[in-house]
Amino acid sequence: MKNVGVLGTGMVGNTIGSKLIQLGYSVKMGSRSASNEKAVAWAKSNGAAASYGTFEDAAQFGEVVFLCTKGDSTLDVLKLAKPTNFNGKVVIDISNPLDFSRGMPPSLIPQFTNTNSLSEEVQKMLSGAHVVKTLNIVNCEVMVNPRKSGGDPTMFMSGNDANAKNTVKSILNQFGWNDIIDLGDITTARGTEMILPLWVRTWMATQNGYFGFKIVR
Amino acid sequence: MKNVGVLGTGMVGNTIGSKLIQLGYSVKMGSRSASNEKAVAWAKSNGAAASYGTFEDAAQFGEVVFLCTKGDSTLDVLKLAKPTNFNGKVVIDISNPLDFSRGMPPSLIPQFTNTNSLSEEVQKMLSGAHVVKTLNIVNCEVMVNPRKSGGDPTMFMSGNDANAKNTVKSILNQFGWNDIIDLGDITTARGTEMILPLWVRTWMATQNGYFGFKIVR
Repeated sequence: MKNVGVLGTGMVGNTIGSKLIQLGYSVKMGSRSASNEKAVAWAKSNGAAASYGTFEDAAQFGEVVFLCTKGDSTLDVLKLAKPTNFNGKVVIDISNPLDFSRGMPPSLIPQFTNTNSLSEEVQKMLSGAHVVKTLNIVNCEVMVNPRKSGGDPTMFMSGNDANAKNTVKSILNQFGWNDIIDLGDITTARGTEMILPLWVRTWMATQNGYFGFKIVR
Repeated sequence: MKNVGVLGTGMVGNTIGSKLIQLGYSVKMGSRSASNEKAVAWAKSNGAAASYGTFEDAAQFGEVVFLCTKGDSTLDVLKLAKPTNFNGKVVIDISNPLDFSRGMPPSLIPQFTNTNSLSEEVQKMLSGAHVVKTLNIVNCEVMVNPRKSGGDPTMFMSGNDANAKNTVKSILNQFGWNDIIDLGDITTARGTEMILPLWVRTWMATQNGYFGFKIVR
């Protein structure tokens, strides 16, 4: 596996994309327009293996595709990227169904929480793909360098396909994650999405976003 | 502070009550009836400082009162115990709004999650008391002996009153908790209640309930 698509041009997409380039992958960053200025700037500063295009271009390019979009637009982005472009691929869903409509701190978008999750909706929409939820529980710098938390925190994975989770585990290992818990099928993403409210409050209480959750056992 | 009320005769009430006795407190375990057989048996095996009675008896007895009831009956129990009996007291809410009506794994009771929490409803009902949410994120043996997790996990507290949280912190220290994060007011209990779905799934995936969450920072 060599080619990775990254959907989203924000801090998460930027950080994940740059780390993948450092690791030797070829990465296409996708956005709504074919030449989003943030995607152009990112590609320019990341060398020959970095490219950009539309969401659809990036989905077609990647054998693995990272969803680095805001949770309230993830499903719209997948429609733009065309669900069939993901068939047979591993889709790594980092997005969180945060609801800022009531102000800070955010709650979760009601239809995507408790008895459902955003990742389950992603898997339904991308029925030919293997969706794996992971990395959504830490800030983007910790995602690609867990030691930035100051220790060796735990990362969780949720997904229906064992081979896809092996692929994801290998990428997580390359990012520096040593303690990975496979929670089970994609419905277990409810658990990891629902710790975002605790993430936000821990960040507010400690004034430190560089932390991770360790399952002490 | 010497006298503690414990509402609930299940494993949580039993374990918390026995630990408090070991620490030198006097404990009254409360239940629906004045002589619930589990409460009688607990008192018998815990010596002269252990007693039992109704929920109201236990609420009147305690300067600090632990809520060790199932989340779906906590508010009913408080009505039976009479809210005015809690005036001026510290109420330690360990209960979780778990909803088993859809089978396993449980979800959270919708009206007590995401934009609300069970602890906020407890604080509203006990408007003269100082409610602190804590301990709800580990199994009851780890609550009173965090080292049973195999390490030094983090415990969170949420509550509106700083003095009440100092009292709770001192009890948590006596239970063996060294790493305590004060998340803020009682609304922050949304965060700790919402990690129960991850607790359940981690337990299912690892087949081990003796774990804690450490904030690695």
